[in-house]
Amino acid sequence: MSLPDIKGREAILKVHSREVKMGASVDLSVIARRTPGFSGADLANVINEAALLAARRNKEGVELPELEESIERVMAGPQKKSSLMSEKEKKIVAYHECGHTLVAKLLPNTDPVHKVSIISRGHALGYTLQLPIDDKYLTSRTDITNRLAILLGGRCAEELTFAEITTGAADDLAKASSYALKMVTEFGMSDKIGPLALKKPTQEVFLGRDITQNAGYSERTAQLIDEEVKRLVMDAQAKATELLTSHKKILDDLAAKLFDREVLSGEEIDVILAASPA
Amino acid sequence: MSLPDIKGREAILKVHSREVKMGASVDLSVIARRTPGFSGADLANVINEAALLAARRNKEGVELPELEESIERVMAGPQKKSSLMSEKEKKIVAYHECGHTLVAKLLPNTDPVHKVSIISRGHALGYTLQLPIDDKYLTSRTDITNRLAILLGGRCAEELTFAEITTGAADDLAKASSYALKMVTEFGMSDKIGPLALKKPTQEVFLGRDITQNAGYSERTAQLIDEEVKRLVMDAQAKATELLTSHKKILDDLAAKLFDREVLSGEEIDVILAASPA
Amino acid sequence: MSLPDIKGREAILKVHSREVKMGASVDLSVIARRTPGFSGADLANVINEAALLAARRNKEGVELPELEESIERVMAGPQKKSSLMSEKEKKIVAYHECGHTLVAKLLPNTDPVHKVSIISRGHALGYTLQLPIDDKYLTSRTDITNRLAILLGGRCAEELTFAEITTGAADDLAKASSYALKMVTEFGMSDKIGPLALKKPTQEVFLGRDITQNAGYSERTAQLIDEEVKRLVMDAQAKATELLTSHKKILDDLAAKLFDREVLSGEEIDVILAASPA
Amino acid sequence: MSLPDIKGREAILKVHSREVKMGASVDLSVIARRTPGFSGADLANVINEAALLAARRNKEGVELPELEESIERVMAGPQKKSSLMSEKEKKIVAYHECGHTLVAKLLPNTDPVHKVSIISRGHALGYTLQLPIDDKYLTSRTDITNRLAILLGGRCAEELTFAEITTGAADDLAKASSYALKMVTEFGMSDKIGPLALKKPTQEVFLGRDITQNAGYSERTAQLIDEEVKRLVMDAQAKATELLTSHKKILDDLAAKLFDREVLSGEEIDVILAASPA
Amino acid sequence: MSLPDIKGREAILKVHSREVKMGASVDLSVIARRTPGFSGADLANVINEAALLAARRNKEGVELPELEESIERVMAGPQKKSSLMSEKEKKIVAYHECGHTLVAKLLPNTDPVHKVSIISRGHALGYTLQLPIDDKYLTSRTDITNRLAILLGGRCAEELTFAEITTGAADDLAKASSYALKMVTEFGMSDKIGPLALKKPTQEVFLGRDITQNAGYSERTAQLIDEEVKRLVMDAQAKATELLTSHKKILDDLAAKLFDREVLSGEEIDVILAASPA
Amino acid sequence: MSLPDIKGREAILKVHSREVKMGASVDLSVIARRTPGFSGADLANVINEAALLAARRNKEGVELPELEESIERVMAGPQKKSSLMSEKEKKIVAYHECGHTLVAKLLPNTDPVHKVSIISRGHALGYTLQLPIDDKYLTSRTDITNRLAILLGGRCAEELTFAEITTGAADDLAKASSYALKMVTEFGMSDKIGPLALKKPTQEVFLGRDITQNAGYSERTAQLIDEEVKRLVMDAQAKATELLTSHKKILDDLAAKLFDREVLSGEEIDVILAASPA
Repeated sequence: MSLPDIKGREAILKVHSREVKMGASVDLSVIARRTPGFSGADLANVINEAALLAARRNKEGVELPELEESIERVMAGPQKKSSLMSEKEKKIVAYHECGHTLVAKLLPNTDPVHKVSIISRGHALGYTLQLPIDDKYLTSRTDITNRLAILLGGRCAEELTFAEITTGAADDLAKASSYALKMVTEFGMSDKIGPLALKKPTQEVFLGRDITQNAGYSERTAQLIDEEVKRLVMDAQAKATELLTSHKKILDDLAAKLFDREVLSGEEIDVILAASPA
Repeated sequence: MSLPDIKGREAILKVHSREVKMGASVDLSVIARRTPGFSGADLANVINEAALLAARRNKEGVELPELEESIERVMAGPQKKSSLMSEKEKKIVAYHECGHTLVAKLLPNTDPVHKVSIISRGHALGYTLQLPIDDKYLTSRTDITNRLAILLGGRCAEELTFAEITTGAADDLAKASSYALKMVTEFGMSDKIGPLALKKPTQEVFLGRDITQNAGYSERTAQLIDEEVKRLVMDAQAKATELLTSHKKILDDLAAKLFDREVLSGEEIDVILAASPA
Repeated sequence: MSLPDIKGREAILKVHSREVKMGASVDLSVIARRTPGFSGADLANVINEAALLAARRNKEGVELPELEESIERVMAGPQKKSSLMSEKEKKIVAYHECGHTLVAKLLPNTDPVHKVSIISRGHALGYTLQLPIDDKYLTSRTDITNRLAILLGGRCAEELTFAEITTGAADDLAKASSYALKMVTEFGMSDKIGPLALKKPTQEVFLGRDITQNAGYSERTAQLIDEEVKRLVMDAQAKATELLTSHKKILDDLAAKLFDREVLSGEEIDVILAASPA
Repeated sequence: MSLPDIKGREAILKVHSREVKMGASVDLSVIARRTPGFSGADLANVINEAALLAARRNKEGVELPELEESIERVMAGPQKKSSLMSEKEKKIVAYHECGHTLVAKLLPNTDPVHKVSIISRGHALGYTLQLPIDDKYLTSRTDITNRLAILLGGRCAEELTFAEITTGAADDLAKASSYALKMVTEFGMSDKIGPLALKKPTQEVFLGRDITQNAGYSERTAQLIDEEVKRLVMDAQAKATELLTSHKKILDDLAAKLFDREVLSGEEIDVILAASPA
Repeated sequence: MSLPDIKGREAILKVHSREVKMGASVDLSVIARRTPGFSGADLANVINEAALLAARRNKEGVELPELEESIERVMAGPQKKSSLMSEKEKKIVAYHECGHTLVAKLLPNTDPVHKVSIISRGHALGYTLQLPIDDKYLTSRTDITNRLAILLGGRCAEELTFAEITTGAADDLAKASSYALKMVTEFGMSDKIGPLALKKPTQEVFLGRDITQNAGYSERTAQLIDEEVKRLVMDAQAKATELLTSHKKILDDLAAKLFDREVLSGEEIDVILAASPA
Repeated sequence: MSLPDIKGREAILKVHSREVKMGASVDLSVIARRTPGFSGADLANVINEAALLAARRNKEGVELPELEESIERVMAGPQKKSSLMSEKEKKIVAYHECGHTLVAKLLPNTDPVHKVSIISRGHALGYTLQLPIDDKYLTSRTDITNRLAILLGGRCAEELTFAEITTGAADDLAKASSYALKMVTEFGMSDKIGPLALKKPTQEVFLGRDITQNAGYSERTAQLIDEEVKRLVMDAQAKATELLTSHKKILDDLAAKLFDREVLSGEEIDVILAASPA
């Protein structure tokens, strides 16, 4: 909420690009539109990384390709030079990422998939970039439910294809569990819990003295929360499994192409989906 | 309780306006009457903000409009220059705020609605200003019960209209849950718990040593508290839903007008309600 | 227990009044008798406040009225200049305080009611002054049971008269709950718990290190404690309700007079009670 | 266990009395025999207090009476100058102390009662002095069981006589509960718990870091401990009640004499008991 | 994950061997291949230890034997000079280690066993060296399940052979329990718990203030986790027991040889297994 | 485990005896063999204490008797000069220690009893010295089970003989409970819990910040642990009782001799056992 909106981002980008030579092709309002959710510091990084890339490439000024590359870097860490995964692992990761991608494409009203990759960046073995079209001020129950299904999609694709699951989904599960918990305890999105905020009270700390407050609810409520969180994540898994099962051929096509090419753009994904019979 | 009452507020306003040129139209006793619940610091801010506004507007002295604007600023933060919400979001927020407003208008003996707005201020996407007529020293069970229904009204309006709920109600739910908890554990307003104070004992902290005391009640009592808190909030939701359902036409009229005009004053709200058939 | 007894108080009063001119009417042994429960610091305050009052009143020396006024100030905080409560609130507070007063008068062997007032002092909207006749070294089960009924009397009077309850009883409920807890866990005054001390062990803190000890009892015992505490407070409420219901006419008379006059002395209360038919 | 034994005490007394003039009547080995359970610091206090008393009494040297008086002071605090208890309170305290005394006399193999008093010392309104004959290295289950009955005797005497209980027993209950807990969790003296040590592990604190360890047992065990502790204290209460009921006449005689004389020595107690018919 | 991969290891080895004379036989890429899971500091140690060994052996440069010895040292601590275990203990340890080895050999797709030894190293009485062929980026449910069976194999071999268990398996049990817990709470590998992350939230600590968060799940969920962890470890024990029972003759042969020779290489193990009838 | 083994101990003893004149009779390898379980600091103390004893005895050098005395001192604290226990207490302690001794003698494969004594040392009223023959690297379930029975033997002997139990067994119970807990939660020696490590996770403390982790198991598991710990200790008590009951005559003989002589060597114990009819 305290992140800058599109106008704020454009203003921030302008400030940081004052002492950087920008190519004629660059329109900062376009960059502002492509960076919802970025903080001021993130935007400063985007400009700096782009300037470094342009220098390394002996360009006179920063052009769009450098800015696009640096946006991705800020989101997912620097690209690793070479992949050392085994073929088997690469194949699993390809299916995992295409699981996320395909569920995102099949569900209505989700953010567009910009890119899917199995080139490691930072800690991730692969990644699926979804960018929102606009800044968002409100998120609906359906939005979060879709997000859960997309997160589970990676693991479901692994399981459907290899009848085996791996440690690769740990991060997705942690995120999905955390979103589901917020639905239940902060957003009043579980009918069984009702329109209550059950968040544990934050601790006030004053002058080095910490004033702990016990949880504001009973064991029975804790149990109900657990059940609701589980139900939400299980539903998301069922949804993802259903979508991927009924579109298994497309999943195979996508994963094969991604295994081959290592990166697919949003446009390339659309072409593969359009070519598929379903 | 330790906030200044009306006489105290007038005295404080006088102190802070000594070195500010006040227009002839300004009667500080009127300002004191309109600021119940303000602290001394809040009142100082009101005078300062009003002086700044008058300077910006090249007025010779502070007049009523500057004071009214600055009272609002102190209550809800500075107004955002431009709304970047999508049309869809703006519509949801309009219904949400009108939900609060309409429940407040339909329940007897509630504080008058002074204004409703969908222009963002501070963190809020919209807000409904209710001002008490007098300073209050006692709050009855009915008063708090009504407050809960008004808080739930925003979310109920969203759900009735769009069959969807959003994260926009999180703050309302947190407030409602907290008031309901106080009814049950501090004010003896739950018949099942009885006239008991079950507040967790405050921790005494002495010379940097913190002396924690465990909760003064059992898991079974914690469970009973949870049930009562839930019942109070569910009842409030039922009440709000019932009122908004039986006055859905007025809600639609109000929300349409608010969507158009972005701000409605108490008088304008009254006109719309009077024009409605119910 | 470490408070001074009557002889100690007289000695302390003598020390602090050495440099204050005392009128001929003042007998410090009388003041000592009227201040059981006062600490040494409280007694020093009594003398100082009385000296200030005498100076403000241009008296040559401190007389009894100044000492009486200053005793009350030390007990309940300085009197507020003007009452800003609404008529409705003033009426509720009058009934609340008369509820305490009447239950205290109807129960045998309770401390005499010295005064009842609806002029705000400190945080309290009203107050009922009960002064013990003697210093007390032992408190019986009956004494505490009566104290609980008197505490609940305020809220019962509100409920009987207005069929509504308010936040005004929160302090009474907190005190009653705390006394009931001590009966059950420290004084062995619950037959279901038996002659056991179940107080949570105090934490020893040594050199900034805090050595927490878990509670010395099980959840089942915690539940039994909760039940007994609730039973004691519910019994007190039933007792207070019964007494006030069967003496509702006197309650109305008392409250009407208190609403009119804002303060009633012990003697005035006795007159009203004597005039009542019951 | 780390307290000095009889030889150690005699040695310590000798050290501290080197610079104090001792009368011919004084035999430090006798004093050592009368001070089992005293620490080195307690013994130093005994000598110092005795020297002060002798000086105040203008004696040339410390004699036995000063040493006896100072032993008592160290055990129970300085005697209060004057009793301010009401007659009623004095009577309750007399019965309370005689309850302790009579149960101690009626149970076999308990430490001899040296004195019983209703002159306040320190925080206590009265006290019963029991002195062991020898240093003790082992305490049997029967010893502790008797101790519990003696502790409960005070409250039982109050209840039998006045059909009322007071806050005066709070200290006895705390001690009895604590001894019973040790029987159950440290000494393996509960058949239901068996020969287990269930003491909560002590916390190790190192360099300002505190290393909490959770309790080593389950809620079910905590419940069993509670039941056993309660059973032990209830048994002690039943025993004390039975003894005092069947010797009520002696209790009345003892309490009457104590009320009159305020202090009774062991010999005087024996005379009253011998004179009683039972 | 933040450990260097094969290319990174080779680079690190090169850096650290700059000032060390390396024999012609040494190919650092081979050493890099044999040290998956080593940190940068581990690799530095490998070079240093090898240099020291070469110096002690009066070699002109480091050769492969010194590097192999130093890799083992870094993995399991320095070899103890002489074994002081009793014959009985040596026999138990031989069976224990062969239990690990045989289960690892009998399960498909496990890391190759490089060596098994009953010469103490560091704290371990014996050890079984399993080295992965490649760096691993993903671990499957089957991989971890196999790892559990291998860990349990030591204790199962002891029990099958001596009908007795010892404290020697404590470390294996701790590791197996910890892996099983991760399967259940982090990797979503328990069907009963489902694809949820149930890890206790890490505590945020800020400026010396510690902000504890209670566990994010209820007692019922804690119980389900316990059941699943137990099931996973019990299944592993059953698997290990089944494999060792049906290959008891080979286990005896392996253990006898290991008892004799104290160390067996991977090749020697293969020879024994090949010679066995099964 | 990090304690020195026999060779290590001999080396340490040599270092510490460099500047101490040793008699010709002293063979440090013998001392090393008699001190399994001693730390380096303990061994240094053995040498120092022996040197002091030799000096006090005006010997030219340390001889075997001084070393033996000092080994015992390091194990059980300095011998108290004189026993102040009553005859009754001395008799109880004699039976208690002989209970330990006799159970140890009757169970197969336990460490030899070197000495039994009722001369107080440190905090202990008596003690039974059991010395292992060899350093031990592995402890079996049977070893620990026997240890539990020996620990319970003291209390069982008291109970069988005097039909009374005392506080004297508190230390034995604490040790037995702690060993049993380790069997259940660390060594996988309870069939009901299975081969799991349930030890509470150690707390990591970093830079003064303490990072508490909740227990890794549920209340139901805690309950199961309690049951298993109790079963193990109850079984040990049953075993000890059975052995002592069926050898009561020998127990009486042993205790009578120990009461008389206050110390019995291993050889003397063997003579008494051999003389007994059983």
